[in-house]
Amino acid sequence: MDLEEMKVVAARGALAEVRSGMSLGLGTGSTATEFVRLLGAALAEGTLRGIRCTCTSVRTEAQARDLGIPLFDLAAIAPLDLAVDGADEIDPQLRLIKGRGGSLLREKIVEQSAARFVVIADETKLVDRLGAGLLPIEVTPFALDVLQQRFAAMQLEPVLRMNGGEPRTTDEGNRIFDVRVPRATDIAEVVQKIRDCAGVVETGFFPREASEAIIATRGGIKRMTRP
Amino acid sequence: MDLEEMKVVAARGALAEVRSGMSLGLGTGSTATEFVRLLGAALAEGTLRGIRCTCTSVRTEAQARDLGIPLFDLAAIAPLDLAVDGADEIDPQLRLIKGRGGSLLREKIVEQSAARFVVIADETKLVDRLGAGLLPIEVTPFALDVLQQRFAAMQLEPVLRMNGGEPRTTDEGNRIFDVRVPRATDIAEVVQKIRDCAGVVETGFFPREASEAIIATRGGIKRMTRP
Repeated sequence: MDLEEMKVVAARGALAEVRSGMSLGLGTGSTATEFVRLLGAALAEGTLRGIRCTCTSVRTEAQARDLGIPLFDLAAIAPLDLAVDGADEIDPQLRLIKGRGGSLLREKIVEQSAARFVVIADETKLVDRLGAGLLPIEVTPFALDVLQQRFAAMQLEPVLRMNGGEPRTTDEGNRIFDVRVPRATDIAEVVQKIRDCAGVVETGFFPREASEAIIATRGGIKRMTRP
Repeated sequence: MDLEEMKVVAARGALAEVRSGMSLGLGTGSTATEFVRLLGAALAEGTLRGIRCTCTSVRTEAQARDLGIPLFDLAAIAPLDLAVDGADEIDPQLRLIKGRGGSLLREKIVEQSAARFVVIADETKLVDRLGAGLLPIEVTPFALDVLQQRFAAMQLEPVLRMNGGEPRTTDEGNRIFDVRVPRATDIAEVVQKIRDCAGVVETGFFPREASEAIIATRGGIKRMTRP
């Protein structure tokens, strides 16, 4: 089974949790895309009915609309029964790093509004310790330069995320720094210091949001629940 | 001495802290306006020279520009030597509530970038315990409705700040809720819970920013420093 097949397997596992009549939050990224595709097919076939969905990005909205999935504003259907989304890193305590796709803020808003948030991923996303990769930080444009200075002073090696030669602008009009969490520091403490900086809108650290994870491995499906 | 005179007295006290060549952050609100006016006069008279300023709001920028005060982007002159701004409430530990004027986010960004932040106020702003009035919370528009639901569930009695029949939009394009901090709760704990809600960009609670305060009272100037 290659990575692409694993994403489909995980997405299929999440689809099995969906019941007709549920309100759903749809994630963003390559694994979430597979879930949205399978959901669209189930609705088209009539195996699921009366589903109401809200999206974590403009991109996912476009995909869902193309598939004829019924879309609503978050507030119109919150609290959600279930949110399904991928993650960049997943630790044994089911804490996540998300935001490689750039939708961390909407993802966290939607996932905090869900009774259950099921993470879907392939096994390469499992880590013993969060922060092996980069941590995304969404910031308000006014604070961009002073935050770059502050993050640099905090040894976080901030890199402004770009898109076609321009700073990447999020769906909310913010910018994203990708920072490196220093080894031998606790990520929760680092995030606390980052969030104390005015102008930081959100970080990609999701300490409490996920309720369970469906991980596709070479050996089959692995399920994790909040310890 | 009436309230207006006290604001001028406090502003004059802050002006006495300004030296030629300093970089300054200019606050927003009725007391900060008096400081900006006095600063403009001192620059026009030539008693102060080589001052470089940055503003906490579009409104203050307009006032400072009219007065011929040299303005710069924050990042161009950060770290600032001194920021001067008012506050809505000041407790004995020099913790503040700010944001009645709607500029809490830029104020906090600018004031965290200053080596010294001097609060100027009249004596009516002194409180034994923060939270007698309302606490402003700046939120991203996408989360407006779900945050209203969450704040209501937290017994915070959120009221969306309006402006001419429309939700008030901040300089950063966000919205503001004014909430009531429940009596018999610690404001720092309440703010922590508020900030854990995705979509909250900033609150008007300034726990550590102020380094000193110049308070105009009927009995003269009272100075406070961080305990």
